[in-house]
Amino acid sequence: MTAATILKETTHVPVVKVGMMKALVYRGPDKKALEDHVRPDLSAPTDAIVRITKTTICGTDLHILKGDVPTCKPGRILGHEGVGVIDQVGSAVTAFKPGDRVLISCITSCGKCEYCRRGMYSHCTTGGWILGNEIDGTQAEYVRIPHADTSLYPIPKGADEEALVMLSDILPTGFECGVLNGKVAPGSTVAIVGSGPIGLAALLTAQLYSPAEIIMIDLDDNRLEVARKFGATQTINSADGKAADKVMSLTGKRGVDTAIEAVGIPATFELCENIIGPGGTIANIGVHGVKVDLHLDRLWSQNIAITTRLVDAVTTPMLLKTVQSKKIDPTRLITHRFKLDKILDAYETFGNAAKTKALKVIIEA
Amino acid sequence: MTAATILKETTHVPVVKVGMMKALVYRGPDKKALEDHVRPDLSAPTDAIVRITKTTICGTDLHILKGDVPTCKPGRILGHEGVGVIDQVGSAVTAFKPGDRVLISCITSCGKCEYCRRGMYSHCTTGGWILGNEIDGTQAEYVRIPHADTSLYPIPKGADEEALVMLSDILPTGFECGVLNGKVAPGSTVAIVGSGPIGLAALLTAQLYSPAEIIMIDLDDNRLEVARKFGATQTINSADGKAADKVMSLTGKRGVDTAIEAVGIPATFELCENIIGPGGTIANIGVHGVKVDLHLDRLWSQNIAITTRLVDAVTTPMLLKTVQSKKIDPTRLITHRFKLDKILDAYETFGNAAKTKALKVIIEA
Amino acid sequence: MTAATILKETTHVPVVKVGMMKALVYRGPDKKALEDHVRPDLSAPTDAIVRITKTTICGTDLHILKGDVPTCKPGRILGHEGVGVIDQVGSAVTAFKPGDRVLISCITSCGKCEYCRRGMYSHCTTGGWILGNEIDGTQAEYVRIPHADTSLYPIPKGADEEALVMLSDILPTGFECGVLNGKVAPGSTVAIVGSGPIGLAALLTAQLYSPAEIIMIDLDDNRLEVARKFGATQTINSADGKAADKVMSLTGKRGVDTAIEAVGIPATFELCENIIGPGGTIANIGVHGVKVDLHLDRLWSQNIAITTRLVDAVTTPMLLKTVQSKKIDPTRLITHRFKLDKILDAYETFGNAAKTKALKVIIEA
Amino acid sequence: MTAATILKETTHVPVVKVGMMKALVYRGPDKKALEDHVRPDLSAPTDAIVRITKTTICGTDLHILKGDVPTCKPGRILGHEGVGVIDQVGSAVTAFKPGDRVLISCITSCGKCEYCRRGMYSHCTTGGWILGNEIDGTQAEYVRIPHADTSLYPIPKGADEEALVMLSDILPTGFECGVLNGKVAPGSTVAIVGSGPIGLAALLTAQLYSPAEIIMIDLDDNRLEVARKFGATQTINSADGKAADKVMSLTGKRGVDTAIEAVGIPATFELCENIIGPGGTIANIGVHGVKVDLHLDRLWSQNIAITTRLVDAVTTPMLLKTVQSKKIDPTRLITHRFKLDKILDAYETFGNAAKTKALKVIIEA
Repeated sequence: MTAATILKETTHVPVVKVGMMKALVYRGPDKKALEDHVRPDLSAPTDAIVRITKTTICGTDLHILKGDVPTCKPGRILGHEGVGVIDQVGSAVTAFKPGDRVLISCITSCGKCEYCRRGMYSHCTTGGWILGNEIDGTQAEYVRIPHADTSLYPIPKGADEEALVMLSDILPTGFECGVLNGKVAPGSTVAIVGSGPIGLAALLTAQLYSPAEIIMIDLDDNRLEVARKFGATQTINSADGKAADKVMSLTGKRGVDTAIEAVGIPATFELCENIIGPGGTIANIGVHGVKVDLHLDRLWSQNIAITTRLVDAVTTPMLLKTVQSKKIDPTRLITHRFKLDKILDAYETFGNAAKTKALKVIIEA
Repeated sequence: MTAATILKETTHVPVVKVGMMKALVYRGPDKKALEDHVRPDLSAPTDAIVRITKTTICGTDLHILKGDVPTCKPGRILGHEGVGVIDQVGSAVTAFKPGDRVLISCITSCGKCEYCRRGMYSHCTTGGWILGNEIDGTQAEYVRIPHADTSLYPIPKGADEEALVMLSDILPTGFECGVLNGKVAPGSTVAIVGSGPIGLAALLTAQLYSPAEIIMIDLDDNRLEVARKFGATQTINSADGKAADKVMSLTGKRGVDTAIEAVGIPATFELCENIIGPGGTIANIGVHGVKVDLHLDRLWSQNIAITTRLVDAVTTPMLLKTVQSKKIDPTRLITHRFKLDKILDAYETFGNAAKTKALKVIIEA
Repeated sequence: MTAATILKETTHVPVVKVGMMKALVYRGPDKKALEDHVRPDLSAPTDAIVRITKTTICGTDLHILKGDVPTCKPGRILGHEGVGVIDQVGSAVTAFKPGDRVLISCITSCGKCEYCRRGMYSHCTTGGWILGNEIDGTQAEYVRIPHADTSLYPIPKGADEEALVMLSDILPTGFECGVLNGKVAPGSTVAIVGSGPIGLAALLTAQLYSPAEIIMIDLDDNRLEVARKFGATQTINSADGKAADKVMSLTGKRGVDTAIEAVGIPATFELCENIIGPGGTIANIGVHGVKVDLHLDRLWSQNIAITTRLVDAVTTPMLLKTVQSKKIDPTRLITHRFKLDKILDAYETFGNAAKTKALKVIIEA
Repeated sequence: MTAATILKETTHVPVVKVGMMKALVYRGPDKKALEDHVRPDLSAPTDAIVRITKTTICGTDLHILKGDVPTCKPGRILGHEGVGVIDQVGSAVTAFKPGDRVLISCITSCGKCEYCRRGMYSHCTTGGWILGNEIDGTQAEYVRIPHADTSLYPIPKGADEEALVMLSDILPTGFECGVLNGKVAPGSTVAIVGSGPIGLAALLTAQLYSPAEIIMIDLDDNRLEVARKFGATQTINSADGKAADKVMSLTGKRGVDTAIEAVGIPATFELCENIIGPGGTIANIGVHGVKVDLHLDRLWSQNIAITTRLVDAVTTPMLLKTVQSKKIDPTRLITHRFKLDKILDAYETFGNAAKTKALKVIIEA
C-alpha cells in the first residue's frame, strides 16, 4: 500500500490505530466474551482487511455457542455477515481499494477451483463457510477477508447498508436453498415450514417469482402474524399436529409444488414429505443435527425431488439489484439495533426470540 | 368397425375368433394360472383392442405375485409391456386403425389432465400404471388399451419388434428415472447400484450422454460381468461392505456426480448417500417397501438432489429414434424366449435369475 | 345430447333456438359484415359448441381485414378469443358438459401429436391457430371448438370473466413469446419495444419475474404514459431516433438482458439488435411481413439468442392462477365495451387506437 | 521464484536462456514472418510464462492475416492455442508452479468479473480472446498468460498432448457454439453446414449426445468423405443448390431440430433458415463479415431460436474428461505436423486446405 492510499484510507477512518480492536470471541460451549483482540493483518496477496461498520448475528452463531460446530475452535472471533470499508488490500486484489464500501459474503470463494467455476462457492476448496468458523469473523472492528475480489461486493452509492447486511447470508440462503432449489414459479403453490428469520427470508424472496399461494407453517402465532404481513397467503399453526391435513385441504388434496424446510428437525422434514404433491420439490434449508426418515415406500413413485444446499451466495449480486430496484425490502427483517460494545445484549435479545420477537439484529461497529 | 376393416383385420389374424383367449391371471399371493379368458371389448370411444404379438415379464409382476401391490386384485391379467397389432379402435381414436403394428406403453395417459400436460403421464388422473394392475394387462392374446391415441406408438417399418418390447417399460424406466433425473452428462461420473435388468437399462441409456465413468455395483459377479460387456468402466462387488470406500477411492475422494439406485432397499439407498459428491444427484429407480434413513445431518450442506419417479414413458418416442438409429441395442437385455403357452416356464426362469442368468424374457403370443 | 342436458342447457340460455345467430364475417380485404349465420354443429366426437358470452378483437383480426393472412378466406367468421358456456359436447369429450363456463384458447390443440406433446400447441398437426382463420371463430353467438378437452379451460367460480378474455391470447402471447422466451429473471434489465396491447401484456407479465428495470419504447406518448402506470421503470419515445443511445446510457453501456420486439417491422427489430447486451435474448413477438437485417457481423460474438414463437397458450392454466391470486390484473388492458350488435363500432374504435386510446375492447354477446 | 524452483525448472528445460525466442509475427495484411523476438516477462502477479511445446494454426489466424481483425495490430505474435510447460508464475498464482504441464485456453478469463461468474469467459472484462490478438500469442517458444489460474488447465499424466491442443479452441468452439447452444439431444436430427475443421469439431462433439441423424453439408466431396468417417449419417454436396430440398426430404418435410452454421456467409446462414424445423435451433459458429437476411416474415411463427457465441472455453475441463475416457478422439482432426522453424510451411499447408486436405496442423516448438 502506498503512502497515498494510506492517506486516503486515513481520511475515511480518522481513528487512532493502535493495532487492537474489540471482538466477540467464542470461548467454548456456552462461553463467549467481548474482548480486546489484535487487529488482523494481510496474509496473502489476495486478502483484504475490512473495517466493519455493521454486522449481525446468525442462528448458526447460536449453534456454534452450543458446541454444535466442531470446526469452530475456542478463541475464534464469530460472525460471517456484515458491511464495511476496505482498510487494506493485498497486491493481487484488483477489484477493491482502501476506502471502498463493501458487502461481505458469508461464503469465501476463490473463483478458480472446480466448485467455484460451477457456481458452488460453498464448496470452494480453499474457502466456503470459513468466516467466524475456521478463521476469525466479522463481529469485530476489523476482519481479514481471503480471496477478497470474489468474496466481497461493492456497495452502490446511496444503498441502505442495513438492508445489505441481510444480503451477506440470510437472503441468499432463503433464496438459493429455498426458492431457487425449490423451483418456485409464477402461479405455483409453496409451503414454508418454519417462520423464523430464514423462513421469512424465503418468504420475501419467493415473491420474486409470483407464486399463487404461500402457506407459512410455525408453532408461534407471533411469527405467523409477521409472515402474513410479509406476504404469506395462508398461515397454519402446527401445534395441533394437523398441519399436513390442513395443507392437503387447502390444495384440493394435491399437495404443494414446493415445500421449504426452514427448521432442521425430523418432524418438520417429515411434514414436508406429507404435503409435497406429485412432481413437487422439497427444498431443505434447515441445519439438521440428526438423520430423518425418508418414506421412499410412499415417495418412490411420486416424481419428487429433495434438495439440500449450503448457501453459495452466488445470487448476492442479483439480490442486490432486486433490493436496489425495491422489489424486496430486507430491512423488514431487522427488529433490533445495538452498538458493538453491547453485542452481548444483542446475543441475549437474539437468543430469546420467542420473548423478544427478534428477527435480525443490527450491530454497529 | 366396418366389414371392410374386419376383413382387413382378418387378413392379419387368420385365426378363428371364438371370443376366448389365453391369459396369465393373478390369483392372489403366490398364485397365478394360464387360463382361458374372455377377450376384451371396447368400453370407451378412446379405447383400442390390441392383439399381442410379443410381451415380457417385469420385476413388478413378481412383486404383484408376492402380494406387494394392493391395487392389483386377484383375477387380474398381468403384464404391462408388449407389442402387437391393432384389432379394433373406438370411434374417437384417430391415430390408429386395425392392422397397425403398435408398441404398448406401460403407462396409460389421457394427454389432457394437468399431469399429462406437464409430461407426468405416470400421474394421469385416469391412467398412469394401470395395465396389468388396475385393469387387465398384456400377458394374453388381446388387451384393451384405454386412451389409445396417447398410450400406443406406431412401430416403424422394419423395426425389430423384440427390441421394441424393451421400450414399453424397462428402457424408459432406466432412462427417465435414472439417467434423466440423475442429470447424467458428458464427462460425468456415474455409479449404478444394482446390475439387474433395470440397472442395466440405466447403464445402456446412460451412454447416450457419454459420461466419462460408469461404476456398476452389485453382489453378483455374473451380473457385473454383463455390466462390463454393456459398457461399465468399473465394477464393484459390494459383498465385502467396502463398496463406498472403493467408489471414493476411484473418484479421488470426490464422490460421484450421479448415483442411480436400482435395487429398492435401505442398504442400497444408503450406499448412494455415502458415495454422492457435492452437487451430485441420487436418482432413485428402486421400488421401496420400507422407509430409508436420510442422513441430512451430513447431507444438508452437500448441495445434492434426491429424485424419485414412476416412469412416465414420455421418452418412448425419443428412445425409439435412438434404437432405430442404432445408438443403443436393447436386445442385449433379452436372454430367453418362450411361447405364450409356456409362460409359466418363463416366470420360473425369470424368477430364478441368479441361477438362470435371465435378464428379460420374450413371450411370443 | 340427451333431453336432460338440453333441458339443463335451456335453463342457462332461455332464448328461442332458431338455428341462426349473429356473426362478424370476413368478406375479403377491407370488407366485413355483421350477418345472420347458421349456428355451428358438432362435426367430430371431440368437438364442443360454446355459446359465447364475451369476446374481443385482436390486432391479428385487423391484419386479416387488410388481406395479409391468406389462410383466412372470405366467408369466415372472425375472432379467436373469448369466454362462454358449453352448449353441446361430442361423445368423446370428457372434461366438459353443457352448462360449464369455459375460457377459449386461441390455439386449438389435439394433445396427441408430436408438437402437442412437446407443449408446442401452436404447431398441432390438426389444430394450432385455426379459430377465426381456417375455421369459423368467436365473434359470434356460437362457436365450434375442435379438440375441446385440450382447447378449453374451465372457469373457476367467482372469476372475473372479462379478465379471462385476456387469457385467450394476449396475455399468454406477451408471456410466452416475450417473457418466457426472453428469460426475464429477478434483477434483470428488460426493454420492450412497442407499447401497444401486446407490449403492455408483456409488461404486465414480465413483472411476475421481478426484473429490476423495464424500459418501454414507443412513438406514442400516451401509450408510454400507460406503460408507466403499468409498471415500466423507464419510458423512451423513439421518435427522435436516439432510443438505442438512451438505452445504452441507462444500462451503463452494457445493453439489456432481454429485448422484447412487440411491433413487427424491421426498424424495431433492428433497435433490439442495437440494445441487446452480451449474453442477452431478443424475444420476438411481432408478426413480421418482410425480412429483417440480422447483423451477424457484429452479433456473432455476442453470445445472444433470438427467439420466435407463435403463442402456444400452454401457460394459460398458470396465468389463470396468477390472475386468481391477484398477481396480475389483466382488466387494466380493457378500455372499451360493446354489445355484439355494435361490433362494427368496436372495430372502428379498436382500429383507431391512436385516437381512441383503445387497448382491448370487450364485446358482449 | 526461488532458486529451488529455478533449479527444478531448469531440469525441465535444459536450454540456455538467452532472453530471445522464435515467434511468428503479424506484419500487417498479408505479411507475416518468423522472427527472433524478446521473450515475454511476467507483468502482473497473476501472470504465468509458459514454454510452448505444441501449438497450431486457426482459421482466425488467416482472418487476421487478411486484415479482417482490426484489434490485432502489426507486430503481434499470433496464435491462441497450444500446450506447454510452466516456466515462471507471478506471486498470486496458486494453481500452477514451474514445470507443470499445461493446456492453454484460447480465452483468457479473470474468474472475477460479472461475465466470468456467469461462465461467459469470452466477455471477461480484462480477458476474452486476447491471445494472439490484443496481446502476443502462442506461435512462439514462450507466451505470457494473464490470469493464469483461470486460463490454463493442468494436463493429466499420460495424456496425449496433441489431442489436447485441440481443446484450446476448436473442440470447445464446436461444442459450445454448435452442440450446446444448438441443444443437440439423444434422438434428435442435426444438420451441420460446413465440413471444415470447425464443422468437424461440431460433428465429433455432437455425438456426445447421441443424436439420431447428423447431416453434413459442404461443397467439397473430400470433406464430406471425412465427415462420413467421423460419424455423419448423411452428407449433402450443396453445389447444386438443392441442399435445403434434400434436407427437407430426409426429414419427412419436418426440418431439423438443430442447424449448426459453421461457415460464416449469408448463403450458409440462409440455408439454415430454410431447413430448421418448428421448435428448432440455429446455432451459429461462423465468423460473419457482413449482415445476413433473417426471414422473420416466415420464421416469426416457427418457435425457433437463433444463437450466437464466441467460445467461452468453459467446457474445456469437461471435454478433457471425455477425451481421457476415449469418448472422443480429437487427434482425428490432425492431418499435418511441422517444427516451429517450419511454421511458414505450416501456414502454406493450412491455407491451401482444399488442395492439401489439411484440417489441423500441429506445430512443435
